Amino acid sequence: MALAAGARVQARALLRPWGRAPGLTGLALWFAGSRVLSAAPGRTPAAGGGGPGARCFGSPRVLVEPDPAAGMAVMKLRKPPVNSLSLELLTELVISLEKLENDKSFQGVIITSDSPGIFSAGLDLMEMCGRDPAHYAEYWKAVQELWLRLYLSHLVLICAVNGASPAGGCLLALSCDYRILADNPKYTIGLNETQLGIVAPFWFADTLVNTIGHRAAERALQLGLLFPPAEALQVGIVDQVVPEDQVQSTARSVMAQWLAVPGHARQLTKNLMRKATADRLLKQRDADIQNFVSFISRDSIQKSLHVYIEKLQKKKV
Amino acid sequence: MALAAGARVQARALLRPWGRAPGLTGLALWFAGSRVLSAAPGRTPAAGGGGPGARCFGSPRVLVEPDPAAGMAVMKLRKPPVNSLSLELLTELVISLEKLENDKSFQGVIITSDSPGIFSAGLDLMEMCGRDPAHYAEYWKAVQELWLRLYLSHLVLICAVNGASPAGGCLLALSCDYRILADNPKYTIGLNETQLGIVAPFWFADTLVNTIGHRAAERALQLGLLFPPAEALQVGIVDQVVPEDQVQSTARSVMAQWLAVPGHARQLTKNLMRKATADRLLKQRDADIQNFVSFISRDSIQKSLHVYIEKLQKKKV
Amino acid sequence: MALAAGARVQARALLRPWGRAPGLTGLALWFAGSRVLSAAPGRTPAAGGGGPGARCFGSPRVLVEPDPAAGMAVMKLRKPPVNSLSLELLTELVISLEKLENDKSFQGVIITSDSPGIFSAGLDLMEMCGRDPAHYAEYWKAVQELWLRLYLSHLVLICAVNGASPAGGCLLALSCDYRILADNPKYTIGLNETQLGIVAPFWFADTLVNTIGHRAAERALQLGLLFPPAEALQVGIVDQVVPEDQVQSTARSVMAQWLAVPGHARQLTKNLMRKATADRLLKQRDADIQNFVSFISRDSIQKSLHVYIEKLQKKKV
Repeated sequence: MALAAGARVQARALLRPWGRAPGLTGLALWFAGSRVLSAAPGRTPAAGGGGPGARCFGSPRVLVEPDPAAGMAVMKLRKPPVNSLSLELLTELVISLEKLENDKSFQGVIITSDSPGIFSAGLDLMEMCGRDPAHYAEYWKAVQELWLRLYLSHLVLICAVNGASPAGGCLLALSCDYRILADNPKYTIGLNETQLGIVAPFWFADTLVNTIGHRAAERALQLGLLFPPAEALQVGIVDQVVPEDQVQSTARSVMAQWLAVPGHARQLTKNLMRKATADRLLKQRDADIQNFVSFISRDSIQKSLHVYIEKLQKKKV
Repeated sequence: MALAAGARVQARALLRPWGRAPGLTGLALWFAGSRVLSAAPGRTPAAGGGGPGARCFGSPRVLVEPDPAAGMAVMKLRKPPVNSLSLELLTELVISLEKLENDKSFQGVIITSDSPGIFSAGLDLMEMCGRDPAHYAEYWKAVQELWLRLYLSHLVLICAVNGASPAGGCLLALSCDYRILADNPKYTIGLNETQLGIVAPFWFADTLVNTIGHRAAERALQLGLLFPPAEALQVGIVDQVVPEDQVQSTARSVMAQWLAVPGHARQLTKNLMRKATADRLLKQRDADIQNFVSFISRDSIQKSLHVYIEKLQKKKV
Repeated sequence: MALAAGARVQARALLRPWGRAPGLTGLALWFAGSRVLSAAPGRTPAAGGGGPGARCFGSPRVLVEPDPAAGMAVMKLRKPPVNSLSLELLTELVISLEKLENDKSFQGVIITSDSPGIFSAGLDLMEMCGRDPAHYAEYWKAVQELWLRLYLSHLVLICAVNGASPAGGCLLALSCDYRILADNPKYTIGLNETQLGIVAPFWFADTLVNTIGHRAAERALQLGLLFPPAEALQVGIVDQVVPEDQVQSTARSVMAQWLAVPGHARQLTKNLMRKATADRLLKQRDADIQNFVSFISRDSIQKSLHVYIEKLQKKKV
């Protein structure tokens, strides 16, 4: 295990956790996003993007392209510019997933971004800043809910990581069954919370430990490392790195492989491997919410977030 | 970690988990086995196979070749054609192991197959099909017993994997202290239960996690992967891959290395590392038996097993 | 994972766990050490070794070279000839660490040896031989205390392993946040307790498992493996191997990297990752002491230690 390499990228990542989008960064992008979205008429839920004859559905921020013949659907995050996980996006993701889980035509879902370049910038700082405790609690419960849904989903979840994937974006990928990363040095992935002065909660850490082992996780979490593709593969935070234009097709062939396994046995096996980790959160879900609320409500944290957000907004201007 | 490679072999393995023996496969082989065994006069327990002057002992299905000068014995599975783990074989393995453990001349055992080409095809489906609940319970208790004995044995157990080793055969290997696999692409190893539509019990999974880590185990178990030698080594499910004709000699030199360690300290250390995993089963042994009995008694499972067995028997004809 | 390589070194290590210092070995060196120390006037605590203008402090056996401008200090073990962890050295290490932790000028410490060639020979057998149970209990409590302090320290601890590091020396390194080993084949590192006929306690084992995973730890602990640099890196027991003359400078650049991370978030994250392991000892600290006392007080153990020590002392003569 040569763990040293990942460390090199940390400094760059401090202010721009998604490592892209010069001029338009982070939260500021989130604001811009609403406009970009409404100005993109070709991207309404019912419009193109699915295969021939496929009828897309979904919700404003989650495009679902069903492929019942293949027993699967593609679920695209569509909250430009950076797919930050707002309360609305979280809720729509859970609802879309639930719909697919309840429809027996689907045994698998490919999760990807509708805006190649950024998979997801992670949790939405706007939901954590200048709001009241009730809002923080509601938001955190939604974050927990998405993780629990993904991590224990009986569906095969393949993550086609077609862009940068810091913090909550990385958690989303880690909660799937298989991760394919586009080979672009700008597409870094990792739980870089410490770089923002915050702490990944224990169940983020558990999910990372389950994926890359205790030592690599300890180092990555303390340093807030974002791994570029080659290092991401080496440390095991993704399973495969492929050229950018092959991410979706690779995801489809991997999916076919997973769907060839008898489904019921595979689902029970997945549950066997993941239940204990999910139970750790379920047993202290309310306490975890209270922790988050009291942490995020601190004056010092609110102040840092505020400064950080202002910096991003100035950058935009 | 490049985990993708192992996946390539899964499809092939679905119907022939031991990946060999064209025409004579699986359970059908198990029936043929009794005849083959009785037709092989040179293979009676007291006959050849041991070193010069070594007196072999053992039982009908387990040949033991003692080498007291080296402080060890070789234990050969001899239930042709595929060493399926029948109730009788399980019982004889436990008894042979117990005898060696109680004889202070022996500090180590090399476990291998008397029929190179197949190490063990795993649990014997005939014990799980068309019998009554009491039989299923007795059988499962014997499977547990063998694992507990092997996993916590104070003897050094080196596994000379000289053939295919799916499912229960892989568990047997994983329960040893060191695994040497013959370098033959047909000799795949893995817990491929999901491919048969069944689920490896939690203690199979625990044993795999302890060997290759959580992530690799999760993927291998969900997909029911059988790893050919190079991939088996890379993922860590075996410790060494050597040319087929060097498996036994390598096992002997590795054994010498292990036996050079002060025995009492080594035994206590092994126990320290494995007791918690064994205790998980010991604490719920009866519940685990009940689980197995009720799972295997289901009409749907019995029907699949029946179809599967018939298919194998037709192949034989 | 190719785990076989490390095994090659075990035999050599049996009598000389630090693999160096021909003629002057082990405990005998420990006796010689007191004289060497008092005969080395240039090595008093206040004398050289620090950077320009740095004022060294510390205690007889622990030299502390503060570098407040860099926010860190270098802590050098100085109990020649082999830095065996006597009660006095353990106590001084804890006190030095405590001082640095309570001084806000310091966020990190580089731990290294003042005698390149040997990092630390580990626990001091003289503290475990021919003393009364009360002494054994006091000694073991001090060993626990050092580990707990190091493992949970809010400081960034970088270990510059500039010499052999068997047993307790390895534990010391494993308790840090990052390990850099000098590339010298004589500088082996590992928990080789079984080779001396003793058993690493569970929290030594837990610390190793957290670093290199369950399987590699199980094998290394059973065999008492000491890994030379290339194998140490491969198995993950160290994070980096560099030429001998670059160990200290590399430690400084790695430290700068770690200190660039927002400190409070990093500390909370470290605690999140390590608390459960430390708690396992805290919950049974007295029982662990009693275990040690009754084990080490056994006639058979005392006899082996005595024989071992006499052998080393004769070697000296």
